Amino acid sequence: MEKNNLLKPGERIDELYANNIKIIQSAEVFSFSLDAVLLADFAQPVLKQTGKVVDLCAGNGAVGLFVSKKTRASIVEVEVQPRLAEMAERSILLNDLGERISTLNVDLKEIYAHIPKDSVDTVICNPPYFANQPTSKKNPNPYLALARHESTASLADIIQTISGLLKMGGKMYMVHRPERLQELFLLLAQERLVPKRVRLVYPKKEREANMVLVEAIKDGRPGGLRFVPPITVYDEQDDYLPEVRRVLYG
Amino acid sequence: MEKNNLLKPGERIDELYANNIKIIQSAEVFSFSLDAVLLADFAQPVLKQTGKVVDLCAGNGAVGLFVSKKTRASIVEVEVQPRLAEMAERSILLNDLGERISTLNVDLKEIYAHIPKDSVDTVICNPPYFANQPTSKKNPNPYLALARHESTASLADIIQTISGLLKMGGKMYMVHRPERLQELFLLLAQERLVPKRVRLVYPKKEREANMVLVEAIKDGRPGGLRFVPPITVYDEQDDYLPEVRRVLYG
Repeated sequence: MEKNNLLKPGERIDELYANNIKIIQSAEVFSFSLDAVLLADFAQPVLKQTGKVVDLCAGNGAVGLFVSKKTRASIVEVEVQPRLAEMAERSILLNDLGERISTLNVDLKEIYAHIPKDSVDTVICNPPYFANQPTSKKNPNPYLALARHESTASLADIIQTISGLLKMGGKMYMVHRPERLQELFLLLAQERLVPKRVRLVYPKKEREANMVLVEAIKDGRPGGLRFVPPITVYDEQDDYLPEVRRVLYG
Repeated sequence: MEKNNLLKPGERIDELYANNIKIIQSAEVFSFSLDAVLLADFAQPVLKQTGKVVDLCAGNGAVGLFVSKKTRASIVEVEVQPRLAEMAERSILLNDLGERISTLNVDLKEIYAHIPKDSVDTVICNPPYFANQPTSKKNPNPYLALARHESTASLADIIQTISGLLKMGGKMYMVHRPERLQELFLLLAQERLVPKRVRLVYPKKEREANMVLVEAIKDGRPGGLRFVPPITVYDEQDDYLPEVRRVLYG
């Protein structure tokens, strides 16, 4: 397929200038945002060519594509929504990364039919942020509702799957909302994942954190959790602060 | 006793200028430090005169004395080491606060003989930071070792005691090391304490956090955990930043 034929009606191409990755986006479905960029920046994927990285809840594939510039390992983007998985597939072609990155359009429940247990070095995950409670107001757009709410998999399901996929000593990287950090810590403890490094993201000085980045190691030695320097996104004039400019524009 | 007779050999009086509280300190035993000041600043004790506040693991009583300026409630300072409890007692007299603040020199195991279960509105606690493992290098000074290591009570014992003392809806405030935040969150979950507010303290820009302040509510509604704006202690020239100067000097 010609590269200029990769776009469907209503789609656009966004570029992350820091690493020249192009992502096919659409206003109709989930678009990547700063969360994905900061998660990819925070992640330290396995480096070697024979390594295996999984981008879980991959959406339109942004995190896996961003991370590809940091490793020579193969990357599988797992996404349950066919429309998003198909967009991710085209973004991979757009970036000429088809030899190293693939998509897998399956539900988490079926994942071990495609990726063996205990076989992955690094799992990176930008999961839906909001618990799927009957009271939660869902987005009437079903693509966005699935991306934002735990409709098809709870955080517990996701953490269990991450632990199942990882080798002993394999690493997980996740971005989530700070209000769920206790729940996340409890779930990690239940699934042999030991949190090792946390970064809080604050939108502005004097504002509460609205993202948290977590690194955990499967069967890691307990203890030694570090809260590394936080990121503040905007200055008083709503311009990106230098750390964020570096991550976005290089 | 005359106020100028309150000091024993080797002791000095430190003053927290932000609230004019004077604390009897000694190089031989545990001295209050920035942890205690930031904890007292973070705490929101019950305000009413009939309210009951407990300062657990009170050391030389600094936290309870600092907090007394924020409430009209009565305050009990619980400290297992006789030498420290006795210093706290003299600091209370030094500040003319004997009508509202008392000390209790008992082990946590005996606390319910003195303070009924489910009777306290606010528990504030600056516990020993380091787990009492056989490998941990303890301070040869037994006063410092007891204050820094969980020799007489583990973090689990302390959290259980805090939950036992608190009324339903009562609040806990604790300062600890960030590397133990997951463990703390797990223990809180086991003891009906729901964390609601967390503040990270970073010694300097671009350095890892070295303190964490946690507010939890007994039988609070799950969810809604907030990571409020962090505190950074020093600027590049090792001078206190304005937020810390405010807490220290008013």
